[in-house]
Amino acid sequence: MGFSGEHGRFSTEVYAGRLRAATAAAAEAGLAGLVITPGYDLRYLLGSRAQTFERLTALVLPSQGAGAGEPTVIVPRMELASLKDSAVLELGLAVRDWVDGDDPYRLVAESLCTTPPIATAVTDSMPALHLLPLAEVFGVVPVLATAVLRTLRMVKDAAEIDALRKAGAAIDRVHERVPEFLVPGRTEADVAADIAEAIVAEGHSEVAFIIVGSGPNGADPHHECSDRKLEAGDVVVVDIGGPYEPGYNSDSTRTYSIGQPDADVAKRYAVLQRAQQAAVAAVRPGVTAGEIDAAAREVLAAEGLAEAFVHRTGHGIGLSVHEEPYIVAGNELPLEEGMAFSVEPGIYFPGQWGARIEDIVIVTADGAMAVNDRPHDLLVVPA
Amino acid sequence: MGFSGEHGRFSTEVYAGRLRAATAAAAEAGLAGLVITPGYDLRYLLGSRAQTFERLTALVLPSQGAGAGEPTVIVPRMELASLKDSAVLELGLAVRDWVDGDDPYRLVAESLCTTPPIATAVTDSMPALHLLPLAEVFGVVPVLATAVLRTLRMVKDAAEIDALRKAGAAIDRVHERVPEFLVPGRTEADVAADIAEAIVAEGHSEVAFIIVGSGPNGADPHHECSDRKLEAGDVVVVDIGGPYEPGYNSDSTRTYSIGQPDADVAKRYAVLQRAQQAAVAAVRPGVTAGEIDAAAREVLAAEGLAEAFVHRTGHGIGLSVHEEPYIVAGNELPLEEGMAFSVEPGIYFPGQWGARIEDIVIVTADGAMAVNDRPHDLLVVPA
Repeated sequence: MGFSGEHGRFSTEVYAGRLRAATAAAAEAGLAGLVITPGYDLRYLLGSRAQTFERLTALVLPSQGAGAGEPTVIVPRMELASLKDSAVLELGLAVRDWVDGDDPYRLVAESLCTTPPIATAVTDSMPALHLLPLAEVFGVVPVLATAVLRTLRMVKDAAEIDALRKAGAAIDRVHERVPEFLVPGRTEADVAADIAEAIVAEGHSEVAFIIVGSGPNGADPHHECSDRKLEAGDVVVVDIGGPYEPGYNSDSTRTYSIGQPDADVAKRYAVLQRAQQAAVAAVRPGVTAGEIDAAAREVLAAEGLAEAFVHRTGHGIGLSVHEEPYIVAGNELPLEEGMAFSVEPGIYFPGQWGARIEDIVIVTADGAMAVNDRPHDLLVVPA
Repeated sequence: MGFSGEHGRFSTEVYAGRLRAATAAAAEAGLAGLVITPGYDLRYLLGSRAQTFERLTALVLPSQGAGAGEPTVIVPRMELASLKDSAVLELGLAVRDWVDGDDPYRLVAESLCTTPPIATAVTDSMPALHLLPLAEVFGVVPVLATAVLRTLRMVKDAAEIDALRKAGAAIDRVHERVPEFLVPGRTEADVAADIAEAIVAEGHSEVAFIIVGSGPNGADPHHECSDRKLEAGDVVVVDIGGPYEPGYNSDSTRTYSIGQPDADVAKRYAVLQRAQQAAVAAVRPGVTAGEIDAAAREVLAAEGLAEAFVHRTGHGIGLSVHEEPYIVAGNELPLEEGMAFSVEPGIYFPGQWGARIEDIVIVTADGAMAVNDRPHDLLVVPA
């Protein structure tokens, strides 16, 4: 938790531009508008970190056109003060507050200045608690706003790229310190506690996740950490990250070996390293997300390791640790300059060990720029 | 963040009983079943703290009857290991895992063993991201499971009441220490940091929220904390809480005065204190939630303070800090023995000061038992 209440955000012009672009995209999609409850979309559009759940807070963004309403923020009266933590007031948006007993869903419909059936798109995190009553008032089930907002959210502007690079540099500094934490006899939890401290000490506003998967635990891609003690000969997956003000995330994985790895581990790891390189090398505008996934997968398959790679190659990153574009088989989305995502193939041998290498890359005019620059080798620490 | 990965939960029999009761309630409601994604309902039913977002994890609970499927957990293959942190394996539930590229929504429909249109209820926290594709596969928009699960979740059993009492005792110990933190010249954020440490030191697993609203900040019911320095003469609202293993929350507010309060503050505070007492005194089975709200409101209204009380009187509490029953005007829900909720009227004078008194109470056979027992007076600390 942050107790200062001070959160960074971009200039008001950045949010004004995003609102204009989102409105235009909604109009182009033939929608009456967008309804955005607290979550990453709201943070993207307004710089708001509201987290209300059972009482409706929503940005209602009517599409432009004759009779369209104006952008309006629906907010419980008792949460009015929280608006100053977002760009709402500077943007001069209309605000309609409500108190317990009012029907906030009807306020949403009124703000759209149209009568049911009302075709709208909603943020992907909107809980059923709000979505189902909205669908009833609208007379038609909303669609996901992801299609409308995805290009906006996926293609990072210069300020966002700068934020991602700072986050990347910060997590690199943490990985630089990880070898000193990986001492045989210490538990994964001990190491995670040190890493948590380092993540914040290196400038992140908080810890988002810490995976310390040693020995057989490394074979579970989503293992967090346990009381297992590190031993000589362990291969250790360390996957860590957190938000860096104004809230863009780092996410980087390196794999460490406690003492020299045996020949088989070294050989398979080298294949993984080539797979990760191949995927990064395949990145450029116009290539599809699925092709990046295939680039990693083919290298592993050629060495008989296809079955060991049990997850997608990557995920987009920004305000959210996991967002579009997903680097996964079958995703026909063509990459565009400014997209940011992880490239993180892994190999997993249940009951034995696992390894993963992950950098965040940003699509450039003719390739990829990694925001991380720690060595990709299996990093040997003293046994 | 907890790095040990060790979470308390109740015995397997508790969860088995909850699943039986939920299944019966779904059948009685004429539903094909319940679909529960990660959130408090899933934690209530399975002891699972899963937090997956974009990849579907769901408990599918078909209603009993001819041709009904069996309770099934749908889970991404890479999250399979996380099942051991819940009661899923001990309960012997069917598990259907899926990988990127599969259609998990179709797995849900198959697990219900019926063909569209499929009438189901979903957990209130299910995000639009999952709800909209489910509605499409089902051929009909689901309804909220709240109606089906509300009685189960609201009426606490003996183990839950014990957990709430332990949480209440822990937050009382924190409030006992608050006066030493409230020193003029220190900021609200300084005080909040001390409280955060005390919340964990007194046995909570983490901090859920901390409000330190001094002087004019106390007039905002949802102020968190700021860099405002405490001054002699400040009235300070301190509203704090957190989960206590196995995850039941504390939530208690006391109001402090730095130095002797002036006569007007003391007079209005005394009315608030009577309002809070009146609401607690009104609690017993059969009385409606709205009547409890009215009991507090009437005392304030009689003294001209109706307008100063800008929120509902309370909210249910358990695994979630805010859940049913909501103690709000118009709520016709009759209270039942075992329900647990806050009674927390407040008075707010914008730009000047505010006050609130909050205990968690549990409905008994003939009244209310508070889990908190700190004095309700305006607590004077040295100026």
